[in-house]
Amino acid sequence: MNNPSRPNAGIAISPSRRIRRTPFSDRVEAADVQGYTVYNHMLLPTSFRGVDADYHHLCNHVQVWDVAAERQVQIKGPDADALVQWMTPRDLSKAREGVCLYAPLTDASGRMLNDPIAIRIEENHWWLSIADSDIVLWARGLALGRGFDVDVTEPDVSPLAIQGPKANELITRALGQDIASLKFFNAGWFDVLGRKMLIARSGWSHQGGFEIYLNDSKLGGDLWDLFMDAGKDLNVGPGCPNLIERIEAGLVSFGADTSWDNNPYEAGLARFCHPDRVDCLGKEALISIAEGGPDRMIRGLRFETDNLPPCPGGWMLMDDETYAGNISAAAMSPKFGGIGIAMIERDYLEVGTELIAFTPDGPVKARVCALPMKD
Amino acid sequence: MNNPSRPNAGIAISPSRRIRRTPFSDRVEAADVQGYTVYNHMLLPTSFRGVDADYHHLCNHVQVWDVAAERQVQIKGPDADALVQWMTPRDLSKAREGVCLYAPLTDASGRMLNDPIAIRIEENHWWLSIADSDIVLWARGLALGRGFDVDVTEPDVSPLAIQGPKANELITRALGQDIASLKFFNAGWFDVLGRKMLIARSGWSHQGGFEIYLNDSKLGGDLWDLFMDAGKDLNVGPGCPNLIERIEAGLVSFGADTSWDNNPYEAGLARFCHPDRVDCLGKEALISIAEGGPDRMIRGLRFETDNLPPCPGGWMLMDDETYAGNISAAAMSPKFGGIGIAMIERDYLEVGTELIAFTPDGPVKARVCALPMKD
Repeated sequence: MNNPSRPNAGIAISPSRRIRRTPFSDRVEAADVQGYTVYNHMLLPTSFRGVDADYHHLCNHVQVWDVAAERQVQIKGPDADALVQWMTPRDLSKAREGVCLYAPLTDASGRMLNDPIAIRIEENHWWLSIADSDIVLWARGLALGRGFDVDVTEPDVSPLAIQGPKANELITRALGQDIASLKFFNAGWFDVLGRKMLIARSGWSHQGGFEIYLNDSKLGGDLWDLFMDAGKDLNVGPGCPNLIERIEAGLVSFGADTSWDNNPYEAGLARFCHPDRVDCLGKEALISIAEGGPDRMIRGLRFETDNLPPCPGGWMLMDDETYAGNISAAAMSPKFGGIGIAMIERDYLEVGTELIAFTPDGPVKARVCALPMKD
Repeated sequence: MNNPSRPNAGIAISPSRRIRRTPFSDRVEAADVQGYTVYNHMLLPTSFRGVDADYHHLCNHVQVWDVAAERQVQIKGPDADALVQWMTPRDLSKAREGVCLYAPLTDASGRMLNDPIAIRIEENHWWLSIADSDIVLWARGLALGRGFDVDVTEPDVSPLAIQGPKANELITRALGQDIASLKFFNAGWFDVLGRKMLIARSGWSHQGGFEIYLNDSKLGGDLWDLFMDAGKDLNVGPGCPNLIERIEAGLVSFGADTSWDNNPYEAGLARFCHPDRVDCLGKEALISIAEGGPDRMIRGLRFETDNLPPCPGGWMLMDDETYAGNISAAAMSPKFGGIGIAMIERDYLEVGTELIAFTPDGPVKARVCALPMKD
């Protein structure tokens, strides 16, 4: 059970009220979920058929994902627009309602504390769909300290994602043709189970799809069943963010690929940062990083190997005897072979650079590549 | 595997760099840990021999616990004393170095955001040994917003606990007789593996013991081995906070027994709150709660049953047809029979009150009792 090359493989997660179940957990467990992680103090499935089989199903059919752990931090009140702009270097001055904005959050040193999707619900009313850190505390602390007039809460909102090439077909069958007209990273309010719910064309894969922001926990089972019933002939099945697909797509995981010490430029998010234009936390630090260029940056890797062990803890990347970076995720892709994501020091960022990855199975040649990966 | 009466029982936790391993994880896994929870984005063991066998071993021998997930939030700088006092209704004006202070943290409404042990390392230098929420973000947010001059960081400090009736014998063997003179909830600096480390007489059980604040992750394995080697004839073994023992002892778990909506009076922590004396967040709200008495409060329960199912999600407590409270933890104690912890509405707080618990196995009679439990 405890294989030293596969740390904590197979060890059970203990049920606890502190690790919250989601409105969909009963369905997820009835569908034989094989693994969980914990994200924002909540269960998040990691596998149903095994990572490889999940990948093939996701890339060919359509899946229903319990991503309730993408909690919403609601910021509402007279100073909400000002607070949210203070929290991110992304320029929100032209933010329109119903547009999803990927908005890295930074502290006074420019370090990234989370990388939510920010949605302006209306003037002075935002939802931040967060990665795994307690931004509700950060936002409340900032507001209290500075005297901003806002309410910062976690509403009863639990996203369910529909992902895969047949997502369009499935969602229009279940909820009507109108949704098909949503553009990528746009959101609108639609009738779902007798309520108005926000739906966005978004999700944590590059296979296309939607996220439905369920706003009544009691309806979790019904929402899950709605899609499962409507998609039987589409081979719909349960799913979850997939390690192989997310590496191919270059979807950076906050806390896994980046640490609390990285800045958004290191995370490869320069295009979402406009510290010169806005009055945000870390403005000076971010301007200076943007000018000098970050010391390290996220890149893809292609490994010369037919076999990679699991990489839960990170592997060192070396150039001869010099530290060149840290590999945070790796997997065997049916499309690309051995692939990974790494935080690479600035001297080695050029696509094609050859480095050595120190895996538990020994050194493996790795070549720097761009993200998302392309043949 | 997925038994509806035991939600998420047996489902594996997926290895991830985002869920941090501890300096002791390799030893914990070599010792055949059976379950994990996630606490402050870090692994925390939940069982080695099963909860019952762990309980008997803890109450009769001595255990070494990986409680590295009790992360330290270090607050240091000219305004550190002022910031920490602003964060807690506990009166810190006479806080001496080397004394562990249980210090609930509250927001502007008096809601409890965490319940750390606060240790004043020296003037304007604190460690908050936190429960499971990102207080590093809360403290940084408050400081930034209000312009306090402090550094808020998570240092490389990972507590290892020695718990059980033979803890005194084990620690003095391993680290010298001086430590025996430490009083309960006092801390001092001692020589450990060639470094000075903080050691406190404290821990998350009522069996007596110590917490060693390991301050160099690289020494985790050595520290674990030091105690395991020194205690062979004491029947030393691995352990972890134990469900049965912590219910008997009335050790309230933030996030499990209390929610983010509870205040410290509801959590039963009135004796650590002095909102009338200090300038803290939520001062007015807390004074008003203290005056009127809380609407509900933590109590123990004794069940009239020989058998209880696991209680991971909470059970309702009723007085005939009226809601009387919520049970957050329950277990069969070898000493007391069926026991639990509940947040009980104010009309039912009196010790001896008889209520009905709605368990998945049907209704069970429950009698309110004081905590810690006594025969």
